[in-house]
Amino acid sequence: MKITFIQTGGTIDKDYPQRETDHGYEFKIAEPAFNFILKKVKPDFEYEVISILKKDSLDIMEEDREKIYSVVNSLENDKIVITHGTDTIQKTAEKLSYIQNKTIILTGAMLPEKFCNSDADFNIGMATGVVQTLDKGVYIALYGEVCSWDKFKLK
Amino acid sequence: MKITFIQTGGTIDKDYPQRETDHGYEFKIAEPAFNFILKKVKPDFEYEVISILKKDSLDIMEEDREKIYSVVNSLENDKIVITHGTDTIQKTAEKLSYIQNKTIILTGAMLPEKFCNSDADFNIGMATGVVQTLDKGVYIALYGEVCSWDKFKLK
Amino acid sequence: MKITFIQTGGTIDKDYPQRETDHGYEFKIAEPAFNFILKKVKPDFEYEVISILKKDSLDIMEEDREKIYSVVNSLENDKIVITHGTDTIQKTAEKLSYIQNKTIILTGAMLPEKFCNSDADFNIGMATGVVQTLDKGVYIALYGEVCSWDKFKLK
Amino acid sequence: MKITFIQTGGTIDKDYPQRETDHGYEFKIAEPAFNFILKKVKPDFEYEVISILKKDSLDIMEEDREKIYSVVNSLENDKIVITHGTDTIQKTAEKLSYIQNKTIILTGAMLPEKFCNSDADFNIGMATGVVQTLDKGVYIALYGEVCSWDKFKLK
Repeated sequence: MKITFIQTGGTIDKDYPQRETDHGYEFKIAEPAFNFILKKVKPDFEYEVISILKKDSLDIMEEDREKIYSVVNSLENDKIVITHGTDTIQKTAEKLSYIQNKTIILTGAMLPEKFCNSDADFNIGMATGVVQTLDKGVYIALYGEVCSWDKFKLK
Repeated sequence: MKITFIQTGGTIDKDYPQRETDHGYEFKIAEPAFNFILKKVKPDFEYEVISILKKDSLDIMEEDREKIYSVVNSLENDKIVITHGTDTIQKTAEKLSYIQNKTIILTGAMLPEKFCNSDADFNIGMATGVVQTLDKGVYIALYGEVCSWDKFKLK
Repeated sequence: MKITFIQTGGTIDKDYPQRETDHGYEFKIAEPAFNFILKKVKPDFEYEVISILKKDSLDIMEEDREKIYSVVNSLENDKIVITHGTDTIQKTAEKLSYIQNKTIILTGAMLPEKFCNSDADFNIGMATGVVQTLDKGVYIALYGEVCSWDKFKLK
Repeated sequence: MKITFIQTGGTIDKDYPQRETDHGYEFKIAEPAFNFILKKVKPDFEYEVISILKKDSLDIMEEDREKIYSVVNSLENDKIVITHGTDTIQKTAEKLSYIQNKTIILTGAMLPEKFCNSDADFNIGMATGVVQTLDKGVYIALYGEVCSWDKFKLK
């Protein structure tokens, strides 16, 4: 089994800015949380991590969604886990719903993975589990639940 | 949807002994990791946490397995996640395989949930995800993968 | 022995904004890190935690420094640990240097206390140690070193 | 300024045993916590980390104390921070009190550094601070307080 993990940005990958380059209150989007979490899990399966975007989901434009669609659509692998900001996760899921030959799970987090109290590990675990067990289609895994993308309700 | 989370012990719930009661090198098995992890996730679903045992899995005897079987069998709820030490997780899974009207996921961890680098959150997330998506039966979710209990290979 | 811990803001107390009130990239300054760190340490000494400001140090104005000065000056206790953003920590230290009957240690952090890899615990520990051992005066404890406020060099 | 950090063992360095070599309830004493903590702090000062022993302090024998004494006594550097199990920390401190040309701070932790809620970072920070500010002599820094070794009271 092989899983493709895709970063688009969102809270899950937010980190504190480097002192040298930037001061003040702003987060930046950093290395995919997948890298840190999978190191702890040492999974048995084969996988790859791809970064398509590093954006807060409110900044994801139509052309960004086109790009996500195009990269995912062209993948040979059919088990895809995508991290995404929660605000517009359903919009991107809708776009991806035209892809019919893959199981695609979108997830994210309420707190960045870098925070001690983050839900990131749980959510990536949930997405990694259900991508193995669900039929082809597009799903959102958040707040402890997994549902078809069109049933999702943003909290 | 409702999920029943069951503690039997194992690495995932090991904690450092209280100074007052005990010195030296030994771990004790403490409060279920479920409690700490679900607080971070703030799940939408209804759930209950039950502690049946607090044992390292090498210390789980036939009578303990009888007890686990009996408690799980008598539950009205049909979505069950069980934490268990990994060494004998498959033995307990086999025992539970006679229960046919529930989806039962057994999981655990390589490092206690109290450790910064634990795989506990990921594993509980994985189990929580697949208990919602799999058919009735008994499964083991570990090392990033989910399989029918009889296919599991201990690392 | 009694120590007075004072919050003025800065990186050490930055937290992720609540979903309900705020979206996007901005941190907010939250509850003093002292509260979380001292809970882990269970110190023997008596202490109090006072919040004077919740500001990034680049936003601390002359009137804010007046306020910090005035609160610290009026304290009966003579062992004071202050958390402060690093960018203008020396300016505030200079202002406080007119207070001659107290030992005042200013510290902060490169990463918020909420982050797993934060230096906050170490820095608060360092400040708590030296406030007990140094003569009256104003000192900065950062980057592993403690020095008189006028010797400090911002990294 | 240069600090010599010395590992003798104790709770602070306890880790979960590797699956391959050992099962069950027992901790092992692993790599010095100094290494992980100083990486977060990126200190300005020069330092070295030396491992003399990896023992629970109840297992430290007279010959072990001789060895600690002998290594510390022969160091050229005069700023020494030692981690030690708390149960017999005062015994080792007494032994070291015959060394009169160095500032020696003994510290430890109630929970291993690997635990999310550990007091290790705070304690190492405290010891690192006061080793810079105290006169020659042997001190114990624990439970938030620093005192001459003969004044220490074990909790």
